Amino acid sequence: MNQRIPVAVLGCTGMVGQKFITLLENHPWFELKELVASERSAGKTYRERGCWKQPTPIPEHIANTRIQSPQEPLQSRILFSGLDANIAGELEEQYAQRGHLVVSNARNHRMRPDVPLIIPEINGSQIELLRKQTTYQHNGGGIVTNPNCSTIILALALYPIWQQFGLQRVMATTLQAISGAGYPGIPTLDLLGNTLPYIAGEEEKMESEIYKILGTNNFKISTTCNRVPVLDGHSICISLQTQQPSTLEGLMHALEHSYADLNLPSSPAQVLQILTDPYHPQPRMDLQAGHGMTVSVGRLRTCPILDWKFTILGHNTIRGAAGAALLNAEWMTSNGLV
Amino acid sequence: MNQRIPVAVLGCTGMVGQKFITLLENHPWFELKELVASERSAGKTYRERGCWKQPTPIPEHIANTRIQSPQEPLQSRILFSGLDANIAGELEEQYAQRGHLVVSNARNHRMRPDVPLIIPEINGSQIELLRKQTTYQHNGGGIVTNPNCSTIILALALYPIWQQFGLQRVMATTLQAISGAGYPGIPTLDLLGNTLPYIAGEEEKMESEIYKILGTNNFKISTTCNRVPVLDGHSICISLQTQQPSTLEGLMHALEHSYADLNLPSSPAQVLQILTDPYHPQPRMDLQAGHGMTVSVGRLRTCPILDWKFTILGHNTIRGAAGAALLNAEWMTSNGLV
Amino acid sequence: MNQRIPVAVLGCTGMVGQKFITLLENHPWFELKELVASERSAGKTYRERGCWKQPTPIPEHIANTRIQSPQEPLQSRILFSGLDANIAGELEEQYAQRGHLVVSNARNHRMRPDVPLIIPEINGSQIELLRKQTTYQHNGGGIVTNPNCSTIILALALYPIWQQFGLQRVMATTLQAISGAGYPGIPTLDLLGNTLPYIAGEEEKMESEIYKILGTNNFKISTTCNRVPVLDGHSICISLQTQQPSTLEGLMHALEHSYADLNLPSSPAQVLQILTDPYHPQPRMDLQAGHGMTVSVGRLRTCPILDWKFTILGHNTIRGAAGAALLNAEWMTSNGLV
Amino acid sequence: MNQRIPVAVLGCTGMVGQKFITLLENHPWFELKELVASERSAGKTYRERGCWKQPTPIPEHIANTRIQSPQEPLQSRILFSGLDANIAGELEEQYAQRGHLVVSNARNHRMRPDVPLIIPEINGSQIELLRKQTTYQHNGGGIVTNPNCSTIILALALYPIWQQFGLQRVMATTLQAISGAGYPGIPTLDLLGNTLPYIAGEEEKMESEIYKILGTNNFKISTTCNRVPVLDGHSICISLQTQQPSTLEGLMHALEHSYADLNLPSSPAQVLQILTDPYHPQPRMDLQAGHGMTVSVGRLRTCPILDWKFTILGHNTIRGAAGAALLNAEWMTSNGLV
Repeated sequence: MNQRIPVAVLGCTGMVGQKFITLLENHPWFELKELVASERSAGKTYRERGCWKQPTPIPEHIANTRIQSPQEPLQSRILFSGLDANIAGELEEQYAQRGHLVVSNARNHRMRPDVPLIIPEINGSQIELLRKQTTYQHNGGGIVTNPNCSTIILALALYPIWQQFGLQRVMATTLQAISGAGYPGIPTLDLLGNTLPYIAGEEEKMESEIYKILGTNNFKISTTCNRVPVLDGHSICISLQTQQPSTLEGLMHALEHSYADLNLPSSPAQVLQILTDPYHPQPRMDLQAGHGMTVSVGRLRTCPILDWKFTILGHNTIRGAAGAALLNAEWMTSNGLV
Repeated sequence: MNQRIPVAVLGCTGMVGQKFITLLENHPWFELKELVASERSAGKTYRERGCWKQPTPIPEHIANTRIQSPQEPLQSRILFSGLDANIAGELEEQYAQRGHLVVSNARNHRMRPDVPLIIPEINGSQIELLRKQTTYQHNGGGIVTNPNCSTIILALALYPIWQQFGLQRVMATTLQAISGAGYPGIPTLDLLGNTLPYIAGEEEKMESEIYKILGTNNFKISTTCNRVPVLDGHSICISLQTQQPSTLEGLMHALEHSYADLNLPSSPAQVLQILTDPYHPQPRMDLQAGHGMTVSVGRLRTCPILDWKFTILGHNTIRGAAGAALLNAEWMTSNGLV
Repeated sequence: MNQRIPVAVLGCTGMVGQKFITLLENHPWFELKELVASERSAGKTYRERGCWKQPTPIPEHIANTRIQSPQEPLQSRILFSGLDANIAGELEEQYAQRGHLVVSNARNHRMRPDVPLIIPEINGSQIELLRKQTTYQHNGGGIVTNPNCSTIILALALYPIWQQFGLQRVMATTLQAISGAGYPGIPTLDLLGNTLPYIAGEEEKMESEIYKILGTNNFKISTTCNRVPVLDGHSICISLQTQQPSTLEGLMHALEHSYADLNLPSSPAQVLQILTDPYHPQPRMDLQAGHGMTVSVGRLRTCPILDWKFTILGHNTIRGAAGAALLNAEWMTSNGLV
Repeated sequence: MNQRIPVAVLGCTGMVGQKFITLLENHPWFELKELVASERSAGKTYRERGCWKQPTPIPEHIANTRIQSPQEPLQSRILFSGLDANIAGELEEQYAQRGHLVVSNARNHRMRPDVPLIIPEINGSQIELLRKQTTYQHNGGGIVTNPNCSTIILALALYPIWQQFGLQRVMATTLQAISGAGYPGIPTLDLLGNTLPYIAGEEEKMESEIYKILGTNNFKISTTCNRVPVLDGHSICISLQTQQPSTLEGLMHALEHSYADLNLPSSPAQVLQILTDPYHPQPRMDLQAGHGMTVSVGRLRTCPILDWKFTILGHNTIRGAAGAALLNAEWMTSNGLV
């Protein structure tokens, strides 16, 4: 692939937009050429806009790129969308009509029957839904989505078990990082030395999206979502009951060996890693596994009520957002849909 | 009660010991006269010892009290024990043999058949077990215990439901504060902007103690304990299934109206309070309810797997430790056992 | 004072407004009767408004009080203003013209020559400036202000030294709490495990207000303001040079004995307290001294460049804001100006 | 350099030891072959020891390396010492007598006249002191040290100014990260939502070491050291007076252009970077500059008392500890002393 595919980031000033910029730096297939944000930001260079919150500097060529408004035409084939849900619905649709492939992290089109909601390792074949979109048929434009951050992390841990043993019931209690709430997000006054027992809409999203991804709702799922003072990294405490009898060895084997390597630039060597020290996984130490694309599984043990209990951890803005969309774009490209 | 009962604090330098000192200040029934700690602290005044970590100053008369070693004889009738588990077992036994009533927060004697493990609002009548202790029969000495901090908070929320509807299954996932780990406890390097998925021994204690308190093990309980960067206040996310059919109204009524007021100095006006704002309970705002003796209940809703889900919060070093022992001593006193 | 004076809180939904409500609960002289906030809040009861961020519950009678808009006439004689600076200037002026005494924490009128900018222990006599205000002469209305939070805390530590030895140079570096930034204030993403080296406008305010309070600018002051992840409590590291020769004993004597007790409901037993443990003062442990009205002084030692170095700590929303205004109102009342 | 030089890490289980392991991974000149820790750790593989606190996994070949005790002979030419000060004095001396070059981060030998205390960019020529060490003359063994973390960061910002304009007075107030206190270091109970106004011994070290590095004590320095809840990154608020007249432009030019590139594997492209956004430098965003080897300078402005004020930030365990020692070893190697 000598010529890299030109791409744009929609919502480039937000937390997910910034992560797109970081992950696209030196990407072997995609070249970030255009930045789009609201009228308020348009016209400024990215450096002038002054929104950067990443621990590494703004890539130099991006810093000097002028931010475009949603009205301006774009040259890029693929648009990575980190748009806010309150505008993503309409804007992404418009871009698709103009012939762009929108790879979106926004929730708006996720449940549309003709929109792929994919995690390539799990339901990659659903990418073919793209061909059903009217825009794709007319001008090659369309929309591809990834699930909500907590859903992706949960789904990656559930899928091998579901595939091998079937699932009957899944209870999940999350401890979610603040970066998932965007910027400015949660005031320090609300979260310093504190936790919040509720994240609006999150439990509903987790429960409905997981069914669409697996293509079934023949098991029950119950979630409770908490916000904790952690920068990046969602932890999820899971109890589950399998449909077929399952053993600890069988479970560990399924978790470690179910996923084939996709051989895409953003796919990790291990989709899941099992940790045996009971003090793991923890955000501070296990978040960077697989450059943020590996989900860590720990504390695997029997549950006195359902069958098994364990705790998982994933990077919410990489595996759960920008990295997820990037992997979707790579998957779409490798499947000849671009 | 014109003459206050002289009391001592064992393990006076630790976090629970400090909380005993704070709560005993101006207590109407008990007068803190003696302080006991290890050889390393003995001989110093409490101020010289330099261990104080409370946000209010050391009470003046305590600051100048000389710390005694465990070898020295004590005058006090009641000894509040905040001793570490590695020494509490033997020392508490010795004090009982010397004729003292040890009201202990340590775990060592909790499961002994002749030792009351009580939460007065729930199983206060078990205080009569004290009469079975050989020491109590001989010289009036004995040991009374309260459960582990998470267990107390959980038990207070479960009891009205268990009493009214019976329980079949209880899943509990905790977000626990650092003060429960004592001092120095958890290094900042391990918990700043982080969470830990494991607390050694905690899940076992919660599961076994709850059965002893309720006097039955005919329901199943499964717990997962996490440590979060919160100073004080354990949150617990609960899903449960009742034995009898239950309604939301019935559940709320049980939670709000089951507990009679004990009319003891440390008993709160409300043992449980129900909060309807979904962002509550949270440690920063709801911890001080009932001077730390009220447990808050929020997010009450149906569970797709078991029957009900809700989140509770209690003060781990007050309702879950020093305040619990103090209430036990008040209960013991009002029952004529002192 | 059999009949308590009716008072109102302007900007009742903000952080300072909430602190006013907390401190006015059970006040012996003042009775909180009216609440005022913007149009957006007006008409709702205080509980419905849902802004409460204090660790204690909303006082019951306040919870059910209807919030009034700035257009509605008020019955209260004294209005405590926690208004935002962008509206305080005009609104406070209007209330004065309507005959109310506005005791304000806002910065807008602080530097006006006819407006008292007072800390009663330091320049209480300046309260007489009130008589020069046209409104006060016409209808008894007027404006009284307290300095910025950091300025108050700094001024209380400097004043005894300035009075006793004179001052030549003062270098001050602050570590300021987040509550000073109001709500929502600083995003968790900006401050969790982080510090910020700048607080807009703060250094200028500290440098100019201190001169007005002391009525002189014949010494030099240089400040650097940092934001740190602390909920309440501003720490200030000070180096200073006195005009007259000074000794450590003389300095300590001045700090401990300069302030007379004002005998007002909100004045603390000790305006300053000296701590000798080098690990103090610290926000977590020393903030509540004097119910938040005492400033703590620690680490007093010689400075290799100027004469003396020490670190102080004060409660920014009590001594530095709501408590400061309340003390001003008490002072004004006891001086027969109400 | 086809053959990499074999090196060992002394005190391999501590925080600095772990950082040495991280930085030596894939080092072009040095190959980490041996690990040394106390008797308690000796005999275990590094993975078994279970001390790892870094956000990246233990390098695989290190994880399986057996930890050696200080008694065992070492093959490595260079030993990186992250030993605790209570044992470093004697042990480092012993290793030097056995012919090893100890490149130490410990404070014990820093002030010895024949021991280089160096920051290569500032006083690299002092490396020649090594030749005066008796052990070096006999068997090539010796000791080379780097300053304390805060001192290095401060010295790097002061040196260009001192060199260009001379210095008369330097006031420095620090906000220091917890990683500087080692592990377990500071309990969460002491630092969550809190700051500490004192770091034992730190102010003395900063004041004395800076004189040795610059080879003069003809200016005055006064420091105040605070601990803040930040994981990595020391911030220092500086006010200073130059000997010669200085301008803002001159100062900025000196800061940006004084340092030549050493062209060593660990030397950064920029030793200092100047940031103009007043909200920078801050640990969360600027710490990784130059892979942790660049010191950031911000808030440069005039001081009403001395001449200039600014705030600097440096990575305390990289530029201030392990990276400093590694750079010293590279410098020593490139100067033909190994």
